[in-house]
Amino acid sequence: MSAEPGTGTAPAAEPGTLRPGGRTARVRASVLRAAGDVLAEQGFAGLDLADVARRAEVGKTTVYRRWGSVTGLVADLLADMAEQSLPRTETGSVLGDLRANADLVRRTLADPRQGALFRAVIAAATCDARTSDALRRFYEVRVAEWAPCVEQAVARGELPTGTDPAEVVRAVSAPLYYTLLTTGSAPGPDAAFRAADAAVAAARAGVFRPAADV
Amino acid sequence: MSAEPGTGTAPAAEPGTLRPGGRTARVRASVLRAAGDVLAEQGFAGLDLADVARRAEVGKTTVYRRWGSVTGLVADLLADMAEQSLPRTETGSVLGDLRANADLVRRTLADPRQGALFRAVIAAATCDARTSDALRRFYEVRVAEWAPCVEQAVARGELPTGTDPAEVVRAVSAPLYYTLLTTGSAPGPDAAFRAADAAVAAARAGVFRPAADV
Repeated sequence: MSAEPGTGTAPAAEPGTLRPGGRTARVRASVLRAAGDVLAEQGFAGLDLADVARRAEVGKTTVYRRWGSVTGLVADLLADMAEQSLPRTETGSVLGDLRANADLVRRTLADPRQGALFRAVIAAATCDARTSDALRRFYEVRVAEWAPCVEQAVARGELPTGTDPAEVVRAVSAPLYYTLLTTGSAPGPDAAFRAADAAVAAARAGVFRPAADV
Repeated sequence: MSAEPGTGTAPAAEPGTLRPGGRTARVRASVLRAAGDVLAEQGFAGLDLADVARRAEVGKTTVYRRWGSVTGLVADLLADMAEQSLPRTETGSVLGDLRANADLVRRTLADPRQGALFRAVIAAATCDARTSDALRRFYEVRVAEWAPCVEQAVARGELPTGTDPAEVVRAVSAPLYYTLLTTGSAPGPDAAFRAADAAVAAARAGVFRPAADV
């Protein structure tokens, strides 16, 4: 997770089909930025292709032809957020790396626009299969980005052999999202560090090896 | 968390105002059961007081007078789920207790009706303040029910002095909800045990003491 605030303004290209920075890429960036604005302001129910086209100053026909539906637009927004999101941090220790990850997740959820956007998309995913698929792929990309922190920690002997990297990375995010969704408030910096510390402690104890016992 | 499937059928009373099992309590039970059915089948957007009254075979005026709005009805449903939900399990060890807790959460989320109901309420809470408040209170009740497992573990010397019981209990639920909401699938039994094992390992390492370092 963690498209940073503002990254949506950079031109985005579909690999192999577009010249980065070309007109089609600029249209996509404008439309996705408008879609993100509407999601953050009004939630999924407020999303309307004609309104997005107007905000993006793009022809309605272009938006309908290219994205087809509100769920198609949200799926493309999530794909773009995954493409645009920040690379992992390397600090030299698994605790430092995962604290950096936790803090990035926390800042994203605490950002007014991004936090509202994630709430809206997670809510939409509970009742729309296409959005659910797109959201799952978004997290797969983010987990894959951070998994090497754990692989390196295993190689350095910081964590037990056989530790599942994806499980550790997901364990860092889980309490932060859980707090956001069950209390209505974004977690604070202490909670972010605690999430990373808890994941590392559990990994050290061997919990994230297949069929492990504490 | 964890109103068990079927518990909504028991008559529910508002303490101090109703005779348990009286007509008003039966009306409340019927209306809340119908509301839960609609939430599970159609989500929050499908909830309509007149439809709930018809399904519950209760006068529409009664439903409007007593609950006032869809959000009032969902808030009362969550209060009832907290009242009706199962007491904690005592196994004699913190790992056994928290594995029982994790398995209860997992079974609730995997149950077709309860899982759909929680998804619907969590989605509604992202854009409705009253539902968000009611959901937070629901989890406060559930966390308070299970916190004594952790207090007893500290007293037995299983966990470090100063461990925050609520933090440990929330750490058990977090990965299970995170899996449900970000992948669209309920977690399995192995994931439930892993959630409990990870929380216990982190607690043993002192992560859930205030201002702790691993």
